[in-house]
Amino acid sequence: MKAAEALLEKIVHGVTSQLSQKTFDVAPYIQGLISDASQGERYAVCGITSQHPLNMYFEHSILDGSYFLGRCRVKDAMLYKADVRGDELKRQGEAFTHQGAVIDVPADESIQIEASCLVKTLVHNFSHDPKYLDRFPVLNTCALDYANIHGAPTCGSVLGPFSTVDLTTVRDCVIGAYAYVQAGKIAHMTIDPGTLWIESKDRFNFQYRYPAAVLEAYVSHGPRQAPQGILCDFMAAKEHLWGALDQAAPPTTAGEMPDGTSVDQYAILRGQNRFEENVLVSQRAYLEHTHMGKGSNAQENCHVIHSHLAGNNVTAHGAKIIHTRLGHNVFVGFNSFLRGSASCPLTVGAGSIVMPHTIIDLKEPVAIEPETLIWGYIGGQKDLATQSIRIEAFKHSHARLERENMVFEGDGAALVAGLEARITHILEANGAFFDGTGHVGHAQQHRHMAYHTLQPYPEGALGGIYPTIEILP
Amino acid sequence: MKAAEALLEKIVHGVTSQLSQKTFDVAPYIQGLISDASQGERYAVCGITSQHPLNMYFEHSILDGSYFLGRCRVKDAMLYKADVRGDELKRQGEAFTHQGAVIDVPADESIQIEASCLVKTLVHNFSHDPKYLDRFPVLNTCALDYANIHGAPTCGSVLGPFSTVDLTTVRDCVIGAYAYVQAGKIAHMTIDPGTLWIESKDRFNFQYRYPAAVLEAYVSHGPRQAPQGILCDFMAAKEHLWGALDQAAPPTTAGEMPDGTSVDQYAILRGQNRFEENVLVSQRAYLEHTHMGKGSNAQENCHVIHSHLAGNNVTAHGAKIIHTRLGHNVFVGFNSFLRGSASCPLTVGAGSIVMPHTIIDLKEPVAIEPETLIWGYIGGQKDLATQSIRIEAFKHSHARLERENMVFEGDGAALVAGLEARITHILEANGAFFDGTGHVGHAQQHRHMAYHTLQPYPEGALGGIYPTIEILP
Repeated sequence: MKAAEALLEKIVHGVTSQLSQKTFDVAPYIQGLISDASQGERYAVCGITSQHPLNMYFEHSILDGSYFLGRCRVKDAMLYKADVRGDELKRQGEAFTHQGAVIDVPADESIQIEASCLVKTLVHNFSHDPKYLDRFPVLNTCALDYANIHGAPTCGSVLGPFSTVDLTTVRDCVIGAYAYVQAGKIAHMTIDPGTLWIESKDRFNFQYRYPAAVLEAYVSHGPRQAPQGILCDFMAAKEHLWGALDQAAPPTTAGEMPDGTSVDQYAILRGQNRFEENVLVSQRAYLEHTHMGKGSNAQENCHVIHSHLAGNNVTAHGAKIIHTRLGHNVFVGFNSFLRGSASCPLTVGAGSIVMPHTIIDLKEPVAIEPETLIWGYIGGQKDLATQSIRIEAFKHSHARLERENMVFEGDGAALVAGLEARITHILEANGAFFDGTGHVGHAQQHRHMAYHTLQPYPEGALGGIYPTIEILP
Repeated sequence: MKAAEALLEKIVHGVTSQLSQKTFDVAPYIQGLISDASQGERYAVCGITSQHPLNMYFEHSILDGSYFLGRCRVKDAMLYKADVRGDELKRQGEAFTHQGAVIDVPADESIQIEASCLVKTLVHNFSHDPKYLDRFPVLNTCALDYANIHGAPTCGSVLGPFSTVDLTTVRDCVIGAYAYVQAGKIAHMTIDPGTLWIESKDRFNFQYRYPAAVLEAYVSHGPRQAPQGILCDFMAAKEHLWGALDQAAPPTTAGEMPDGTSVDQYAILRGQNRFEENVLVSQRAYLEHTHMGKGSNAQENCHVIHSHLAGNNVTAHGAKIIHTRLGHNVFVGFNSFLRGSASCPLTVGAGSIVMPHTIIDLKEPVAIEPETLIWGYIGGQKDLATQSIRIEAFKHSHARLERENMVFEGDGAALVAGLEARITHILEANGAFFDGTGHVGHAQQHRHMAYHTLQPYPEGALGGIYPTIEILP
């Protein structure tokens, strides 16, 4: 494993040299990963369809348990159970609109991951930075468990466990555990753990901060210490199920699917699940006793258990939905944790928006009215007074709005319009509006998927490293 | 499947244009293969070790159910359940001796398969033609079920089912079903079905011809007609077991193996098998209730069932051994079919050589004395009088020796010396003589094997065709 160890050292060196926050010591987080990895899945999976432009290149990297879709280039990197999704890549000649200006995409876009270490990280392109039209970079970056790099070119940064950088160009930053940032561009910043920050310059700024005790209970970590807390325990309890990937054996999916619906072969279905049309269940999604209404989706690392999704529901990457009924068009954001139980179910009324990184963990039944905006930590009905607002009311907020741990400044209608436009885009991209011929999205494109599975050298000087592999059309 | 159909047409055109025997119509043999293939295994497997120089390249080809090991380049070809073994490739700068002259190998050798259609075919390099030191070509060739291209550069030729070309450069030839040719170089020839021909110019010439009725019973074929007969039925009865490959799931091997022994993950073990040291069981070998003595091997497509191999036994590619006891150092040649039963077992004494393409199919027990050379068709003890000879006696044959359907001319000792040298080489290459540090061979090198599994485009214009894939160190 000499080459594998040398690779990690090189990655640590690269991240450290880019990071101006010299107090943050990356090495303890990365060291030990090789022994973790070598006990786990020693396969990488490449999804092959005729719809996604193929051009995958892997050089001198560890790819254990990872999944790739679309154009990507990985070099000198360690990816451990990471998902790299390139199914919304820009194509050469496409028109890209930025702040009113229309720019031609100069070449087919590719995801480029270099000198980085990504642990159970989701990388999804669809970036909005005109500087990166033909390549979506993740460079000299260390992302810890279940971080989410979503349309966010990231360089020289550290992402804490369950953190999300979303539509934000990130340079030389440390993003704390379970922090969510959507702020256009950030550099040389340290984002505190448990921060929810959505800013659109000159229009609005939304900030929420988890109480320290809540954050500690759900996810915390430190150097030489694996992330811990309720979110980690929840994921760990299901970890053994993904052994299927270890065998490189696509598990059998549940027979015939309705028109326009696809369930990835690397998803897991347990118990009785029902699927209507135009449903997308992505790789590493887990479904148990769940009804997926027409046009709903469960994206990577989502868990939807004993729940009912009425239709056009987005379950964004890493969200968990348990003993919950969602009305039509309810959106559940990244890494949210909605946990009811048989005796204390959760109901969310139609058209509601559950903000990313929301925790609703119930000891009593809770019903949320339709058209509600929800954020932060909710343990029971009374917390809704401070952690939610009717969308209509929020739209009329034009100045400063303060609630427990939350401050909003600016134009509420602009935030809502932004969220709604994005939800519509997500539904459209995922194929929710497929009509038999038009509005094709991921749910339809993924119905016919083939796979390449790759393994590293089993021993010797290159042991643990994957051969150089190039896959072209 | 438009591209797949166009590919087959192109292959037919290529073979036909190279073949001067215009009476042989290749098309009917190749047409229909796509529908066969699309119902079967849609995976190709690449074996990855640190011992075999990696350089695999696949372009515009169908590779269903095939297995690759070592450097190879496949272009515009259809391989269906083929095995391509490049683990005896020559390395740059190695000394190659040909008729006393020593030549430096100019570059690392690679197997090059182009514009060819190989069905369940074994391709093994280790060629002896100084013209092809850095590439081992199979070009414009159509090889039917279980043909064996063994160290035999082959161009513009058709190989019938269960035929073998061995250490022979083959150009513009039609090789009949179950024919075996080892003759240095052949061109513009038609070899009749059921021919066994071993010739070393100016030294010896061994020819045997199967009786037409026997050949018809064991393997026959015609245009638009799948090969049929006992050999085909035997293989077909086990065909469903290889579904494991279809799942790309390496089946679990039988726990701990003795030192120096390896069982490929794509081999199948049934019942109680025992393994001594330095045993090699290759991919697509099938073992059932068998004892593999020290240094024995079962190569690709071999079946060894209810049998006992005492030690240093070679079971060459495609050989079947059933209810048989082999003494030490018994060699069983390519595609031989040795079938005893519980009540009619076969015993072969130590040091015997079963020539390639020998059929021993018993209705009474048969015991063959040690140090015997055996060929042709043997149904009972009495057939040994005409189809075998003690090796010592054969060594003293200096002129013409005639037996039923067999003619030998030349120096018997030279043939025996050639066979014995080759058997020693095979045992050595396969690792039979491994002493804990030295004499490493395939059995030791294959103990740590990783795999890439590849799939074709599942649908669309390129449906059935594999993406272009390059695998480098």
